[in-house]
Amino acid sequence: MHSLGEYFDEFTHRDWQTRDPTAVSDTVRIAVVGLGWFTREWALPGIERSGFTEATVAIDIDPDAVATVADEHDLIGLTPEKFRNGVASEAYDAVYVATPNATHLEYAEIAADQGAALLCEKPLEASLDRARRLVTICDDADIPLMVGYRMQTDPAVRRLKELLRGDFIGDVLHIHGTMSQTMLGELGEETGQWRLDPDLSGGCALMDIGIYPLNTTRFILDADPTEVYGHTRSAHDPFEEVDEHATFQLRFPDDVRALCSVSQNAQHASRLEITGTDGQLILDPAFYEREARELTLVRDGVESEIEFDPVHQLEEEFAYFGHHLLTDTNFVPDGEHALADMRVLDAVYESAATGTPIAVE
Amino acid sequence: MHSLGEYFDEFTHRDWQTRDPTAVSDTVRIAVVGLGWFTREWALPGIERSGFTEATVAIDIDPDAVATVADEHDLIGLTPEKFRNGVASEAYDAVYVATPNATHLEYAEIAADQGAALLCEKPLEASLDRARRLVTICDDADIPLMVGYRMQTDPAVRRLKELLRGDFIGDVLHIHGTMSQTMLGELGEETGQWRLDPDLSGGCALMDIGIYPLNTTRFILDADPTEVYGHTRSAHDPFEEVDEHATFQLRFPDDVRALCSVSQNAQHASRLEITGTDGQLILDPAFYEREARELTLVRDGVESEIEFDPVHQLEEEFAYFGHHLLTDTNFVPDGEHALADMRVLDAVYESAATGTPIAVE
Repeated sequence: MHSLGEYFDEFTHRDWQTRDPTAVSDTVRIAVVGLGWFTREWALPGIERSGFTEATVAIDIDPDAVATVADEHDLIGLTPEKFRNGVASEAYDAVYVATPNATHLEYAEIAADQGAALLCEKPLEASLDRARRLVTICDDADIPLMVGYRMQTDPAVRRLKELLRGDFIGDVLHIHGTMSQTMLGELGEETGQWRLDPDLSGGCALMDIGIYPLNTTRFILDADPTEVYGHTRSAHDPFEEVDEHATFQLRFPDDVRALCSVSQNAQHASRLEITGTDGQLILDPAFYEREARELTLVRDGVESEIEFDPVHQLEEEFAYFGHHLLTDTNFVPDGEHALADMRVLDAVYESAATGTPIAVE
Repeated sequence: MHSLGEYFDEFTHRDWQTRDPTAVSDTVRIAVVGLGWFTREWALPGIERSGFTEATVAIDIDPDAVATVADEHDLIGLTPEKFRNGVASEAYDAVYVATPNATHLEYAEIAADQGAALLCEKPLEASLDRARRLVTICDDADIPLMVGYRMQTDPAVRRLKELLRGDFIGDVLHIHGTMSQTMLGELGEETGQWRLDPDLSGGCALMDIGIYPLNTTRFILDADPTEVYGHTRSAHDPFEEVDEHATFQLRFPDDVRALCSVSQNAQHASRLEITGTDGQLILDPAFYEREARELTLVRDGVESEIEFDPVHQLEEEFAYFGHHLLTDTNFVPDGEHALADMRVLDAVYESAATGTPIAVE
């Protein structure tokens, strides 16, 4: 157990990073695929800030985006075709994929062909079957695969997990997770649009938003759901073909229950509340990269709110990616880890379609 | 729509009370049955403060409790047998019943026999069948029956309901309700004990605690659940025979979902969070008579926390009861209203036993 002083001093420290200053002297060079809002606003700055990574190549189906980003960041700009043909493949060690979900597989194939490490955005693909193929391709080519769960390297989440492990709130009983936004308002019509196409996204509220409370809960509990029960709902144009809103319930081992609601068309909010026999841990706001997290600890009625200088979540994620590649360390959020989410999401959609709880294998 | 000034000025006003000062000049005289912790700490002070009620008679199976309370409040003390035989029946107009759930029916029979109005604590009885019999007895005797849902006369809940009706948060999408306590620690071994006996209580976490988020959600939505899905869990001695923890999900018309967790053996907490297309309404703390409520309004990202001098919830409840009897006005929380809760609780226990969602008729 930390002393109170150490707890404050080390709140944002990277517990996953080697303390040997000579262990990492290089940087991982990254080809960035998909130059949408998130890549430009968050991933590229994260790569530049991380210390263990640098962007060298930019790829997109939109030549204007490639020209703009390559110019702004001094990168080699490529079309997907040139990228596939190995043009400039000597300029990168790893590939970051932040394209619509259903195109992750094709870019994973390119990374595998070239023996480059892969950092793939979540959800891993648009369907469980395609996600499995993606993992197999990386396994067969023996390339390292990490999936971009930015919450897992956020200090608030890591400290929360430590408190759970340290029995700070006793036995965990139930968890409530909520996350909502007005997708088209907050991300813009253009950025939001592909998520409305089920062929490209595989689903909307659950795939894009539901994965946050789902994966964060799995991460902090260090456990996987054994049964799910879920509902989806679409009330408004233009969400006819995908889930606009969803609720789902996860059953974890020891009968812990997580009750979650997500929406792509509601008041912006996010919260994760864990109740145990002896305390509560509350992250609110919880899940948005563009908001500071605040962690509330409650134990035996004594309450403490912890506010801290927010980390740049993508700086932390890329630092973890680069550091682990350079030190030859396995990723926690690897392909198998991401497939567990895909199985759960698949089961929630099945539960929503059938109206019954579904066991997760 | 109120002006902002009126909103503050009228936040705690009794919107259910007649504005005619001459309409009510009498008081309702109440026989109080069941002299446990809640009656002594909350109900008797509420009766004394309400202005429309006064306690005149005290009944309990424990003669020491009767003697102590009768002496302290200057009441006529009776054994249940004398009460049943109509001793001092000319001294009360109404009966308040705050005994273990499975004994409500026998005291309702006495009130019915004597033509006295009845304010019965919730849950209405220990089983749906007995609750139905209780309502039938009151109907047949044509005595007014109100059920003690103290949240319904709390100004925070009434203002919250007005905001929902006034479309303050747009379409309601999902609701999260949590309520937990350490029953034996907070209420004391003696007070808590009967809730551990399924013959007396009919259940524990759901019957005693789950009814708060359930009924408050029904009240604010003005709607009843059409389907439920629930789980119960008992991990610790002495909760072997009843539900120590429970989670349940309620489906309301328009596909609104309420996700609730309750516990009799967890960190004390309570919260009700309603998310809509355009805003959120949050009551936290929400459900305990011994805590002030705080209401947070969020609309289009603008947030406002409303703190106010807490009302005495039992003063408000008894004022409503007395006022409505004296003005010959129907109660909103009447027998039929309470039976809807009993049907839902029955369905949640059935869902927990079968592992499947259950339609509520």
